[in-house]
Parts: sequence; structure tokens; C-alpha cells
Amino acid sequence: MPLPPEFHELARRVNNWGRWGTEDELGTLNLITKEVVRQAARTVTDGHRIPLAVPLRQDGIQTGLIPGRVNPLHTMIAVNTGIFGPDTVVTSDDVVTMGLQAGTHWDGLSHVSHSGVLYNGRPADSVTAHGRAAFCGIDRVRHLVSRGVLLDVARARGMDRLPGEYAVTPDDLDAAEEQAGVRVRSGDIVLVRTGQIQRYLAGDREGYAFPSPGLSVRTPEWFHARDVAAVANDTLTFEVFPPEIEDGWMAVHALDLVEMGMPQGQNWDLEALSEACATEGRYAFLLCATPEPFSGGTGAPVAPVAVL
Amino acid sequence: MPLPPEFHELARRVNNWGRWGTEDELGTLNLITKEVVRQAARTVTDGHRIPLAVPLRQDGIQTGLIPGRVNPLHTMIAVNTGIFGPDTVVTSDDVVTMGLQAGTHWDGLSHVSHSGVLYNGRPADSVTAHGRAAFCGIDRVRHLVSRGVLLDVARARGMDRLPGEYAVTPDDLDAAEEQAGVRVRSGDIVLVRTGQIQRYLAGDREGYAFPSPGLSVRTPEWFHARDVAAVANDTLTFEVFPPEIEDGWMAVHALDLVEMGMPQGQNWDLEALSEACATEGRYAFLLCATPEPFSGGTGAPVAPVAVL
Amino acid sequence: MPLPPEFHELARRVNNWGRWGTEDELGTLNLITKEVVRQAARTVTDGHRIPLAVPLRQDGIQTGLIPGRVNPLHTMIAVNTGIFGPDTVVTSDDVVTMGLQAGTHWDGLSHVSHSGVLYNGRPADSVTAHGRAAFCGIDRVRHLVSRGVLLDVARARGMDRLPGEYAVTPDDLDAAEEQAGVRVRSGDIVLVRTGQIQRYLAGDREGYAFPSPGLSVRTPEWFHARDVAAVANDTLTFEVFPPEIEDGWMAVHALDLVEMGMPQGQNWDLEALSEACATEGRYAFLLCATPEPFSGGTGAPVAPVAVL
Amino acid sequence: MPLPPEFHELARRVNNWGRWGTEDELGTLNLITKEVVRQAARTVTDGHRIPLAVPLRQDGIQTGLIPGRVNPLHTMIAVNTGIFGPDTVVTSDDVVTMGLQAGTHWDGLSHVSHSGVLYNGRPADSVTAHGRAAFCGIDRVRHLVSRGVLLDVARARGMDRLPGEYAVTPDDLDAAEEQAGVRVRSGDIVLVRTGQIQRYLAGDREGYAFPSPGLSVRTPEWFHARDVAAVANDTLTFEVFPPEIEDGWMAVHALDLVEMGMPQGQNWDLEALSEACATEGRYAFLLCATPEPFSGGTGAPVAPVAVL
Repeated sequence: MPLPPEFHELARRVNNWGRWGTEDELGTLNLITKEVVRQAARTVTDGHRIPLAVPLRQDGIQTGLIPGRVNPLHTMIAVNTGIFGPDTVVTSDDVVTMGLQAGTHWDGLSHVSHSGVLYNGRPADSVTAHGRAAFCGIDRVRHLVSRGVLLDVARARGMDRLPGEYAVTPDDLDAAEEQAGVRVRSGDIVLVRTGQIQRYLAGDREGYAFPSPGLSVRTPEWFHARDVAAVANDTLTFEVFPPEIEDGWMAVHALDLVEMGMPQGQNWDLEALSEACATEGRYAFLLCATPEPFSGGTGAPVAPVAVL
Repeated sequence: MPLPPEFHELARRVNNWGRWGTEDELGTLNLITKEVVRQAARTVTDGHRIPLAVPLRQDGIQTGLIPGRVNPLHTMIAVNTGIFGPDTVVTSDDVVTMGLQAGTHWDGLSHVSHSGVLYNGRPADSVTAHGRAAFCGIDRVRHLVSRGVLLDVARARGMDRLPGEYAVTPDDLDAAEEQAGVRVRSGDIVLVRTGQIQRYLAGDREGYAFPSPGLSVRTPEWFHARDVAAVANDTLTFEVFPPEIEDGWMAVHALDLVEMGMPQGQNWDLEALSEACATEGRYAFLLCATPEPFSGGTGAPVAPVAVL
Repeated sequence: MPLPPEFHELARRVNNWGRWGTEDELGTLNLITKEVVRQAARTVTDGHRIPLAVPLRQDGIQTGLIPGRVNPLHTMIAVNTGIFGPDTVVTSDDVVTMGLQAGTHWDGLSHVSHSGVLYNGRPADSVTAHGRAAFCGIDRVRHLVSRGVLLDVARARGMDRLPGEYAVTPDDLDAAEEQAGVRVRSGDIVLVRTGQIQRYLAGDREGYAFPSPGLSVRTPEWFHARDVAAVANDTLTFEVFPPEIEDGWMAVHALDLVEMGMPQGQNWDLEALSEACATEGRYAFLLCATPEPFSGGTGAPVAPVAVL
Repeated sequence: MPLPPEFHELARRVNNWGRWGTEDELGTLNLITKEVVRQAARTVTDGHRIPLAVPLRQDGIQTGLIPGRVNPLHTMIAVNTGIFGPDTVVTSDDVVTMGLQAGTHWDGLSHVSHSGVLYNGRPADSVTAHGRAAFCGIDRVRHLVSRGVLLDVARARGMDRLPGEYAVTPDDLDAAEEQAGVRVRSGDIVLVRTGQIQRYLAGDREGYAFPSPGLSVRTPEWFHARDVAAVANDTLTFEVFPPEIEDGWMAVHALDLVEMGMPQGQNWDLEALSEACATEGRYAFLLCATPEPFSGGTGAPVAPVAVL
């Protein structure tokens, strides 16, 4: 089932290939300049910190819907073991097996390809079982700290939580931006709140996964126009699921990751941040969100923290 | 082999049990106040960011010295797989198995016990194979952002790298502080550079592991006097290894984690940071270093970033 | 909740501690003598082979009921990779993470303890996270080949499948033995068919797990009287579940493994074997069922085959 | 580097494609008929059993030479845990992560391809990271019991152990057969002893891996002429390594697995069997060697047992 013409038209409009050179593997993260970071640091006026990661647990977010993407299996290799004798200092040590994208994570640019290519025209078959991602591995992102802006679409639309098949559109982003009272600008990391993660937090893992509100295929153009560095939200699928256009499975992923070269974040818990932003009447903050540097990973867990 | 009397005398002097209440599981991280974070944000004057994590690789830091603490085994569960047909958007996905303390990491307070107890007098047997750490799990640390201060002991002592069995003493910390021109204060995260990680970066994993320079059993008092929030360095063992006093295996771990309740970081790459600090003549910065929130983990990987 | 007096009385009657010496770690497997094996080989009259293992799959038997005992997660580390160049011979290679008792398996004698002891009075704390089972590890069983006898209780009772809470009693074993027309004798491996695994094979994993028919707390005496070497069945829980006597959780496990020193097998698919035995009117055969030799394992997967 | 003409000539001579139908996925295992198994059972005259598997341990056979093929990492998910309260029966439970071909194992027919095809002309790209082996997975082998014949080449050549680069030739097989006093026939599983595993058993893992004696590229014709069902030996590489002909990397694998459709076994410990066969003057026995049925596995661990 080939991608529809509509997709290719959108792709043309948001494409960033070659913009930062033919060798570039960072995409829109290039937009986070020193000036952007200096400005981000200045947003810290109170000093409190809000964690945005969901705890990593064996009964976590994954339900088996995505085969092999397992929740963290956490086992012990030592429990109060005295390597140097039991009567002295003893240690406990653990091992984990998990999908790199099982919990709160960033998609690397190598996570998705279409028509045989990755971001910047790299061949898709540069990703292998043996070598993982030779280009655009998540380890290329050595730091990810910038200004974060919460676009609280659910709140802007007067809802606790967007309904299951709600496609967040550019109009929704405009409305949330207006409600936030802050202009999204180049190098920002935009956090789009749908409220969907409330389902997971309430114990409904299946309901959280599907159906899910999420970004419309028309939002990449909005992010491209603003030169956003990265976008994360509080859903499993990132984009609305089931998708809004026929034959358009994963179209937002392909536009963001392959065409624009913009990392996407999923399963972020934006509930406490939403409360804080509403209470304090401010929607911009310093965001620390560096992914774990797995060599050749197509994505990685992250423990993001908003500093207000 | 019981702990020597010397240990118990040191323990008495640095003990923080009850200081933040009988229920506390955070220890010295309580010292990171909003004011500390506001001040930390103000240290950002240039905006460049320096990553401090070592990339996570199968041929990484672990050599088998610590049984079971395996380097990341990174495997693929999908390579350009078209869940929705091969001609459309396809995805790659990965799974990893690793010791939580295999790479750049924080020790949680539950990592170590002695005499049957953890920090704040919690029973050591609250750590189990089945439930992991019931108290003081690394997931209690939901955010870890503060002012970082580099104490570049190697540079202060005029060496590229401290020799293998060098015990970093309070005098060394004083010298590095003077060289840095910054006073360590309450809530700071102190990064102690020995230069030892150069061995790993040069491919000598065995030489990196052992023998290793590291912190002396007399340093916990120094950190306690300054009310430091956490300490990390660029070694596998954190403390000098082999240890400086007989029967004193892991004594620094026990003093820091059990008595003081102060998290320790290991395998941090401080080389680029050392260069930058020396060049710019500044040793304080904003440090983003939140561990991955593994529920009940006795430690966790972290991707720390210094923002200057 | 201490074990009821009833348990202790049964335990006294089936206890084998010291029977094969104070150092013994094999228990009733000692009963498989050369003569037993010679006789077992003579049961092969036709030469066809019936596999008794359930295929190992990620969507396999485990449902999450037993935390951490994960189904096999099977991932690739190489897919047609040319270590020596892509144009020559290429290889594929795989890695698995699984609970050792996730599929068709043997419980080792170290799997269970009560009152602080394992089989033969060994201390329960000889099992550790760091060292696994120091005594009675499954790797002590270097070979497991003997005469197998199918006791087809479901068929003997005229049922396709025993109902969910059916406790298989000594009377049931007698009836199945009579129906089989073969006398169980010393060194035999007895396979007790309940038909419960039909639920799993039909896709009902939850119904397979619970409620489950299984062996009554009164059967260990029967096995002890006959000097059976090992017993396996076609359920997840082995014993009837929920248990038949209050406060008697896992009582059959404790009697078989701890008191008698008799290995137990679970999740064996006895359906095809049942058909073959009924058709051919014979219920004894050569059984090859050596567990994978995991050092210090408390159990291990097995791929049993009946040769008729 | 294309395969040399020599290879293609050998391939033509041993090719079995279509011999058991175009849909066949079992290859030479089809040769194990009921009559073969009946005869195999009759070789049991004494009743003792000799295990041929190397124990599965974290410090096992793999040295890192084959990236990702990890030794078993064995961790605990429960240690004497009372799911139903600590005072009653408690259980221990374990999890393992391992390469399916890390220890004593069978290569499945899907392990190797050349020129884009697997055995029987199946497309090589039917093996994927997502689905593993769609054809010729190791789970197709539901039972593997036959007559085993030990060809003790080291003993026949008057050596304890063949030297490192010794290529076992058809002449060597003839000599060992003559020394054994048994004629290899259709459906047999042939075990070729080089003695190389002594190096591993003595603790020299590197020396075991390389250089290694092993089968010559001329042996597949010998096995083909005799209609052998499967061949295993006591080396890591199976074939002589480094290879005997230039550009012939893995040529024996390609001839056996792809052309003939004959499974190969590696890392089998044949030392005790060699002693027993020499002492008793007999080299044929019943061999139970069913691989663990991993769905879509390209290989699997096995715990083979010879019954004499």
C-alpha cells in the first residue's frame, strides 16, 4: 500500500534534507543554539522541578500490542552480597531487560524510514540487526537541554482529556499557544498535552494505547514553520491512532523523523506540569531531557525534568 | 571480618539518620532547595552543553570483574519492519539487557548496607530478589538538577591522571577548590576528576578498573561539612581501590550511602568538562543529572549534562 | 501462616532425607538404575517419537500471574550478516531472555523450601541472587532418561479434560494405572494427564493458569510408595489450584521437592501422547527428558520426547 | 568476495533441494525413520547415560569473539519468596538472557544462507528481526532421537587432541570408522571428536575458540554419501578455523546447512563418551538430542545424552 499523494505533498513542504549539510545526523536539534540555552536558563525563576517520566516497571506501559517492545524486566544479580565477606559492607545490584522505547522515551531519527530512506537521504538498510543504526543513532544526541513550552491542548479546549480519536491540529496548537501566552520559537522543545496518560495512570493500559488522541498529519508544517527542535506528548502513539487519512499509517512519524529530522517523544507524563503551569500562569521553562546514549539505538529512555 | 573501629568513628561523625525525618528516603538530595536551583540556573552564561556520559555499548566499561553486571546487550526486535505493509512507513525497534550500574550511573541509597541496615536505619532485608528495593529505590529520586562544581584534583596536583592507588584526601579537595576559585556549598553536586577514565577511553578496560585512584575514607567528612548533595567521579570503583585501610572494603560506599545518605556517581567522563573549565576559568555550572526511574532499582543509568 | 499439622504428618511419611547419603542432591533420580534404563529402551517397539514440549514463544504460557517469570523474548543480533563480507556466506543469530520455568520445564529440588530448609536438610539461604542454587541446582541432573508411564486420569475418568478445581487423588492414579494396563514401578517417570493444557492450546491462557486441576496433597504418598523417579503433568501449577486444604499453598511442591526430593515437571503437552497411547493400547515408553544444565538453576526448560 | 568455483562444484554434489518435497524444512532429519529409531533403541545394552552438554554458565564458552552471542546471564526474580507469606512454602525463580547458540547447541537450517537463499531455495530474507526464521526455524525439529555414532578422530590418529589448524578429512572419518568398528548408515547422528574442548574444560576459552581443528570442506560429500541425519562436534567453529581454502569462510556451514539441509551441532563435550566407547569397545548408542523448541530460532540449546 504506497503512501498517498497527500503525504508526498506534505513531505515536500517540511523537508530539511541538506539544510545542515549532507553529513548531518542531528536534524532540528541543530536549532538549539547557545543563545537558545541561555534564554532557557533565564526562564528559571522559582527553582522547583517537575519530573516528566513515568516510572519504569514490569507492569508498565507496554501491553504486548507492539511485539517484543517489553516493559522493563528487572532482576537481581546480588542482594546484600558480601563480595568481601558477609560481615562487612554488602551490596545489591540489578539487571534489566527492556525495550528502549518501552517507557518515556525519545524516538531517534533512525526509528523510521519510508521508501528506503532515513533522514537526510541515508539508506534505510544502514539499520541492521548486527550493527543497529549506523546513521542517526540516538547516541548522536549527546545533550538535549533547551527551553520547553507546554501547549496544553486539553486545557485550551476546556477538556480534562481529549477524546480517543481526537486529531490535534494546527488550530489546536494556536489555541494552546494563545492560552499559554507564550510564542513558540526556534529551538524550543514543545510538549503537547492531550491528557491521554491519565488513562495509564488510572490503570487502564489498553485504553491508553488505543484509541488515542494525537498529532494530526497537518502539524509537522506548524512545527516546521516555527523551527521547533523537538516535540513530545503524553501518548503511546504520538500521532492520532487510528490515523486520520486512509493509507496514512505512521505518516506523522515519517514527516517528523524522516523528512524534517525532528525527534519525537512519547509517554511523557505532563499532568503535574499542566497543574503547575496553570497555577503559575507560565508555560515556558528550562527542560533537561537528554536521552540515554545507546550506541546505534533507534530510540532511548529519557528522564525529562522541567525546571520552573 | 567485621568493620574496623576506625570505620565506626567516621560513621558517627557523618551520620544523617533522622535529619530529614524517620521516613526520609532522599538523604542529602533534600539539600537541593529551590534557591539552590535558581542559583544554579544563573551559572549558565554561555549556553554550551557538555555531555558527561560514556556511550552505552556491548564492549563498554564492564570486564566481568563484577559478576552479572553486564554491559548493554543491544538487540533488534524490528528492522525497517512494515507492521502495516512493507511499502509504507516502516520502523526499527530495539531491546537491551544491561546492569543498571554498568555504565555512567548513580548508586541509589539502597545499593549498599552494613550491619543489617540501609540509610536511615531501614532493614537491609527490605531489598529482595522479588521486590527489589522497597526503601531508597533509585526511583525515589524524581529529579536531580543542581549546581555542579568540578573539583579537578588531577589538574590541581599538576597531573594528567592520578596514579593507580592514589587516595583523594580532604587536602586534595581543598587544593582543587582553591584552584577552581569557587566555594563548594550546600546542595552542590561535586564532580571529582581523577583522570582515570582516560584509560577506558584509550581502550584499556582492565587498567581502568584496577588499580584505581578514588576517594579516601576521610572524604565523607569533607562532603558532610559542606552539605554536598551528591558526588560523582570518573572511576569504576568511586573509592580508591585497593582500599587504603585493611578490612575497609567499600568503606567509602558505606559512609556515603548508608551513614550520610548521599548518592554516588561512577564512570562519569569528565575530560571535556575539565578542558572547558580550565579554558574558561570557571568551575561551576548547571548540572542536569536525573537517573532513569527504575522502580526499586538500587542504581540507575544517567546521561548527565553540564550547561555552562 | 504456618503449615498445618496435616502437612507435617504427610511430610514425615514421604521424607527421603539421608536415604542416598547426607551429600545427595539428586533425590529420587537415584532410582533410575541401569536396569531401569535397559528396560525402558526395550519399550521401543514402533520407533515413532512424540514431542511433549510446548513451543517457546513470546506469546507463550506466562500471563504475568507470576511476576518476572517472562515468556521468551526472542531478538536478533544478526540477520544474514556477512561477518566476512556480504557476498559470501552470511549468518543469522539470536538471543533470548526468559524465565527458566516459563514453558515446559522441570522444577529443580532447589525451587522450593519450607521452614528454612531444602531437600536433604540443606539451608534455604544457600540459594542467593548472587550465586543462585549452591545445592540441588538443576545442573546436578546431568541426564534424565527412563521409562515413562502415562497415567491418563482424564481419559480414565471419561472426561476430555478434568474440571478446574479437580484434585487428582491416589484413587485417580489407581484408576488410570488400571486403564493403562501397566504397573508403575521404581525409577519410572510418571506423566499425569488432566487435559488442562487444551485450554492453553485453544488460546485461553488465563483459563489455563487458573483455576487448575492438579495433584492432591495425598498423591506424594502414592509416588513415594511406588518409588517414582519424577512426575510431570500438563498444568501450570502442578498441584490443584486453589489448593484443597486451607493454609496449604504449595503443599504438594513442598512434599515432592523438599521432603521426597522428587523433581516435578509442568506445562507438558500430553495431548498427542494420550491419543497415541489410547490408539495403540500401550502406556509405557522410553522418555528422554534431560533439562538444560543451567548452573545453579532452580529449574530449567526441557524438550521431552516419548519414544514408542 | 564471491564464493570460489570450488565451492559451487561441491554444492552441486551434495545438494538435497527438492529431495523431500518443495515444502520440506527438515532436510536430512527426514532420514531418521521408525526403523532407524528401533535399531537405535536396541543399541542400549548396559543402561548408563553420558551427558554431552557443557554446563550453562556466565563464564561459559563465549569470549566476545562473536558479538552479541552472550553466555547465559542468570539472574534471580525470587529467592525463597513467600508469595503466600514468608512462614509457609517459599520459592526461588530465575531468568536467563543468552545467545541461543552460546553453549552446546544445534544450528538450525535457517542459521546460514548464501547467494540470497536458505535450504530448499527459500529466500534468505524470510529471516527478519521482527519475525525471526519464517522457514526452517529450529522449532520445526520437534524431536531428535536416533542412533549416535562416535567417530573419534583424535583417538584414531593417536592423539589426545588434534592440533589447532587440523582439517578433518574424509580419510580421517574413514580411519575413525574403522577404529570404531561400526559402519555409519542412513539416519545416524555422527559425533566427530577432535578433543578441542579439552582446552575449554582446562579454562583456556581463547585457545578453544581459535585456532580450531574442525571439519574440512570435503567432508559434506562423505556425510552425503552415507545419508547422515546430523553431525556434531566438540569445537566452537565446527569447521576448521581459519578455513582451509581462501575465500572459503563458513563454506562447510553453507554446504551442510544450505545445500544438504543437515543440522550441525557445536560445543559438545565428547570426552567422557570417548573414554566409555574406548573402554567398552563400542561406538554406537542411542542418542537423545532434541533442541529446545524456540519458535523461529535459527539455532537452539540442547542437552544431549548418549545411552549405552
